[in-house]
Amino acid sequence: MTRDLSSLLDALFDPGHIVVVGASADPAKWGNAVALQALRGADRHAISLVNRRGGEVLGQQVVTSVGELDRPVDLAVITVPEFGFEEAVDGVLARGARAIVAITAGLGESGEEGRARQDALIQRVRDAGAVLVGPNCLGLVDNHTATYISSNTFRPGGVALLSQSGNLAIEVARLLGERGLGISRFVSLGNQADVGLVELIEACAADEHTEAIAVYVEDVRDGRGFVRATAAAVEAGTPVVVLAAGVSSAGARGAQSHTGSLTSDAAVVAAACRAGGAIQVRTPRELADVLMALRQRAQPRGSRVAVLTDGGGHGVIACDVLEAAGLEVPALEPATQAALSEVLWSQSSLTNPVDLAGAGEMDPQSYAKAFAALQRADDVDAILMTGYFGGYSSGEDGLTGLGPAECAAAKQISVDAAGRKPVAVQSMFPESPASRILAEAGVPVFAAIEDAVAALAATAVDPRSASVLAVPAPAAPIAAVDYTSSRAAFAAAGVPFVAAREVHSAAELHEAARELRPPYVLKALGLLHKSDAGGVVVGLPDREALYLSYAQLSERLAPAAFSVEEMADVRGGVELIVGARWDVRFGPTLLVGLGGTSTEVLGDVQVALGPVDASEAERMLRRLKAAALFDEHRGRPALSVSSAARAVAAVSWFAAAHPEVAELEINPLLVAPSGALALDARIVTGFEARFARTSATDQEN
Amino acid sequence: MTRDLSSLLDALFDPGHIVVVGASADPAKWGNAVALQALRGADRHAISLVNRRGGEVLGQQVVTSVGELDRPVDLAVITVPEFGFEEAVDGVLARGARAIVAITAGLGESGEEGRARQDALIQRVRDAGAVLVGPNCLGLVDNHTATYISSNTFRPGGVALLSQSGNLAIEVARLLGERGLGISRFVSLGNQADVGLVELIEACAADEHTEAIAVYVEDVRDGRGFVRATAAAVEAGTPVVVLAAGVSSAGARGAQSHTGSLTSDAAVVAAACRAGGAIQVRTPRELADVLMALRQRAQPRGSRVAVLTDGGGHGVIACDVLEAAGLEVPALEPATQAALSEVLWSQSSLTNPVDLAGAGEMDPQSYAKAFAALQRADDVDAILMTGYFGGYSSGEDGLTGLGPAECAAAKQISVDAAGRKPVAVQSMFPESPASRILAEAGVPVFAAIEDAVAALAATAVDPRSASVLAVPAPAAPIAAVDYTSSRAAFAAAGVPFVAAREVHSAAELHEAARELRPPYVLKALGLLHKSDAGGVVVGLPDREALYLSYAQLSERLAPAAFSVEEMADVRGGVELIVGARWDVRFGPTLLVGLGGTSTEVLGDVQVALGPVDASEAERMLRRLKAAALFDEHRGRPALSVSSAARAVAAVSWFAAAHPEVAELEINPLLVAPSGALALDARIVTGFEARFARTSATDQEN
Repeated sequence: MTRDLSSLLDALFDPGHIVVVGASADPAKWGNAVALQALRGADRHAISLVNRRGGEVLGQQVVTSVGELDRPVDLAVITVPEFGFEEAVDGVLARGARAIVAITAGLGESGEEGRARQDALIQRVRDAGAVLVGPNCLGLVDNHTATYISSNTFRPGGVALLSQSGNLAIEVARLLGERGLGISRFVSLGNQADVGLVELIEACAADEHTEAIAVYVEDVRDGRGFVRATAAAVEAGTPVVVLAAGVSSAGARGAQSHTGSLTSDAAVVAAACRAGGAIQVRTPRELADVLMALRQRAQPRGSRVAVLTDGGGHGVIACDVLEAAGLEVPALEPATQAALSEVLWSQSSLTNPVDLAGAGEMDPQSYAKAFAALQRADDVDAILMTGYFGGYSSGEDGLTGLGPAECAAAKQISVDAAGRKPVAVQSMFPESPASRILAEAGVPVFAAIEDAVAALAATAVDPRSASVLAVPAPAAPIAAVDYTSSRAAFAAAGVPFVAAREVHSAAELHEAARELRPPYVLKALGLLHKSDAGGVVVGLPDREALYLSYAQLSERLAPAAFSVEEMADVRGGVELIVGARWDVRFGPTLLVGLGGTSTEVLGDVQVALGPVDASEAERMLRRLKAAALFDEHRGRPALSVSSAARAVAAVSWFAAAHPEVAELEINPLLVAPSGALALDARIVTGFEARFARTSATDQEN
Repeated sequence: MTRDLSSLLDALFDPGHIVVVGASADPAKWGNAVALQALRGADRHAISLVNRRGGEVLGQQVVTSVGELDRPVDLAVITVPEFGFEEAVDGVLARGARAIVAITAGLGESGEEGRARQDALIQRVRDAGAVLVGPNCLGLVDNHTATYISSNTFRPGGVALLSQSGNLAIEVARLLGERGLGISRFVSLGNQADVGLVELIEACAADEHTEAIAVYVEDVRDGRGFVRATAAAVEAGTPVVVLAAGVSSAGARGAQSHTGSLTSDAAVVAAACRAGGAIQVRTPRELADVLMALRQRAQPRGSRVAVLTDGGGHGVIACDVLEAAGLEVPALEPATQAALSEVLWSQSSLTNPVDLAGAGEMDPQSYAKAFAALQRADDVDAILMTGYFGGYSSGEDGLTGLGPAECAAAKQISVDAAGRKPVAVQSMFPESPASRILAEAGVPVFAAIEDAVAALAATAVDPRSASVLAVPAPAAPIAAVDYTSSRAAFAAAGVPFVAAREVHSAAELHEAARELRPPYVLKALGLLHKSDAGGVVVGLPDREALYLSYAQLSERLAPAAFSVEEMADVRGGVELIVGARWDVRFGPTLLVGLGGTSTEVLGDVQVALGPVDASEAERMLRRLKAAALFDEHRGRPALSVSSAARAVAAVSWFAAAHPEVAELEINPLLVAPSGALALDARIVTGFEARFARTSATDQEN
């Protein structure tokens, strides 16, 4: 039976008839708390309570089984203990349930047996044409349809909150409330056994009462779907803010024990958020702060921030924190300084930070006038106001009479800010009347400068980027992954290599030496780490040297084969690493970085979901710190980054078409002024990768 | 006249007779606010008010000049306009003033002329055997001697606050108040024309009512004195927390306009804080949070943190944030897990994060028992509790009756925490009764996980390190800084070089070729960037190749001289850069990093104040990311880091003895298994460095 997910999700968020299976009269039980909440929506939905022992719950007569209900079920909430789970689900499916919220825990997250039971049940749910949220979840709320299927209440508002942790959701809702924001929908993701993050993002993006989507997730599961759903939501005007946890090694351990989650590397998750245009945050406070800042509906323009302050060290600290966050605080253009000088006094500093230097204390309208000038300035992308503003109306200032003028300035700033450049305000007096005027107009006001800067960093730069390309259909699996085969496979995919011959005998060596031009490189093949074992000899100037090295390596290493290669001229070039890995959640992922030992040691790498085209590959290369080496540099000619980008793109398409390849690597890819050239290649299929990991673990133990 | 600073500083903080010069009846003027505050201390000090127009101020008769006072002045506060400044200061000096707080602005920070006036006056103050705070400051407070020489009041407590910004001080005091902390002494640094940060740190470290010293500074001025004073304070048990602003380029611009400050590089300031054992923070909130965490008086032990939580994603997020902050969350040892398993239930996860998994909801004492076990564990340096704890007593939890048990657990945790491992608590309910029990016992409770982690990062690791070595007396200035002279100077200082000969003719070349062993390196000398102009040829295998290169370089570059050198075997080695610079505030500073192009591009450098001994140099080298390359690595032998460290130390002593050298550099210093060898050298004296900077600026414009 094909399910119409969209209509089923409607049943989830606005059901006609809600049944609570496992409703309880005991206030210490979930079945009581959920029933209590569900009944708050009784004006809009029919609410039935089921308890096998019968009786009354919260003043309402229960039925002892769903069979007794006099009308079909739309949405069923299952709060029974784990041993009664299947019976309860089968029961509501028999009564036509279209949507199920399964709070019951102890299934998929509890081990192999629980997972098998869960899988079997989900198949029956799908066969019945229904959807299930959970199990092991805390429920669901839609504040606009009065659907309250959770033990907690959430202040209504415009944020859809999708969370893999119940406590986290409670905390986020509290933090949003402190910022004047509330919840449109809340869904506890639980085990995501059927409906998961992807479908819920889609459903909330389509919800007219949802202005932004907030996600707490440990296990993204369908990584590609997540990127697709996020990109669609963002494109349609609903920002998505993501707190993906478990990205550190200890965090992954915690996620494993918390929800049995498989997490992905921090870099892969970040790449996915970037690809989908999601704003990524690290903590609940950042999540709430960014959602507050997004209320401005400002137009992201870029990273050049103007700092506006009146005396004191606040402007200085703001500059330091902004630059540390990757934003720019450039000296303002003469035209902008001229516009500022017309509205400020001679002591004011106009370069950036713009320091009123007492003008604000003389007349709070100075703030508003300077702010308006910065809004008009072409060389300013975003504005950060910091310091004392808010103090004159706070009642804590000794100087008298400036409160009303400050409030008037706040009103003017609110008007000038609306819908334009991203703005953040840090105030020593965030609760003062002037600060409240700003906040109520949607201008985000923060007590701490680092919060203001974090919010500005998240909203100043447009998160939308070219959305990720689809993974191609698998190609025929590669037949062999020895060095020469790997090389051939990459070459066929469009990666340029130096000329080489595989040789197995002195006779073949002699032939290869005649075909190839010196100087030569000789590689002993079939060793785990060729270069570590001394199995690679470079710079062999002539045949004599080549033959001698061959003899020496044969005696010392007895390799199964050799590769004789022409030697690339590496002078003036940069060696990159290009790698790909098949991530358990996100599929093919691509890595580029500075090659050789530098890669491991310095971590100058960029990661993206693959495949990528050459222009995206070039953007990745340009984001490397090492990108400074690509350009003309102290008289050295510029390198052919476009050639490197084409090779990177070719690698990414190859990797994406070969799911049987667990890891692959070209290291180094030499980038020279004239082009790019692969000097080595390595492919590891799934079986080998698992084996290598096991070996590594063995060695550690 | 030699001043007894210690006794003078006593006069500053507990004067017998305070005179406010410029006391005003106008409530909009500083002279009014300061007089109002000063009079609050009239029980302890005699307070006289001076106003040239006479009359009454705040109900007290003023005198029109200090000459009319019937007793000598101990402390004078100068709040007169800038044009009357000298007259006022001279007047109080004539009346025997031992200490002066100069609030008047418009002197040293306003340009050349103001600076000259300020300098002349400070000389007279010093000649009179007095001290002066300011000018351009906001005053001074000692809450324990009722010395209130500032327009603001500060809640009493144990923090001495030394600030170069008035608004920042007000903000910090507010933030401290929110955390239950207060101020012992407040001093506004102003222009630091006489008494500066160094003397005030010393004075506050000696103050029995000061438990910790908080510093906001843009211009450290006496950098070495700062390190010395800080190290002494920390050693004597008074922690010093420093917010040094203006370390970014825009921040330095802001500081310049704010206080006319000259700031130093972020890396140099960080090195100074490390050398002095000061805890460095970036923002006012961090400053307040760290001061709150320091109240524990915990014993810093190391970076291994145990995370304790009960369900939810809080443990997972905490792990991610801790690792991002450089702390470790290692899996716990079997013995520790066994101890935990005795007090928790079977569902609990014991590896780290320690997740009670519902045990806390069953019995809040589970938190206290697990906490006690972690306090006893040898493999845990610090403890972070995060998540729901605090909720059961908050009144917001639906589950009944757990509040008292939670409060009992909080009391137990407070007892177990006292004076032992650093602890931080993040609670969703930071204001709840249980959270307040922790906070009142000195256990820092935070609403946001990133704040808890930042405080833990600042308090978990012992900030004390070997204090910085004294700068030696200047050696005879170096005579020449050409390549060969620079090389000789370094070699004399103990830096090993490859063998080389400077040659000026084919005849000398021939001689050098006979003395040195091939392969050769040939360098054309006298060019700005030898290698950029193609003026360096390496790997010349024999005399024939050497002579040909000599002929070619002569024709192409016509250099004044050449250096012929033996070629070091760089295979298996790592190339470092060792540099030194004379910082305007901190004197000789030392930099080590990965050499070659990697230095600029990857920024893997460590900075310290020079000179350093070999053991400190080795610590710097080991802190590099590239340190992984020093050890035995994929079959490659370990490198002689100790040789490199000796060379680095030699460079640092040379730099410290040569203040006339603005910049010097050895790049690369080759570190091989057998030792370290300098392959190039560069010295720039002050004049040349200024010239190079001017040229660079010209090019930019």
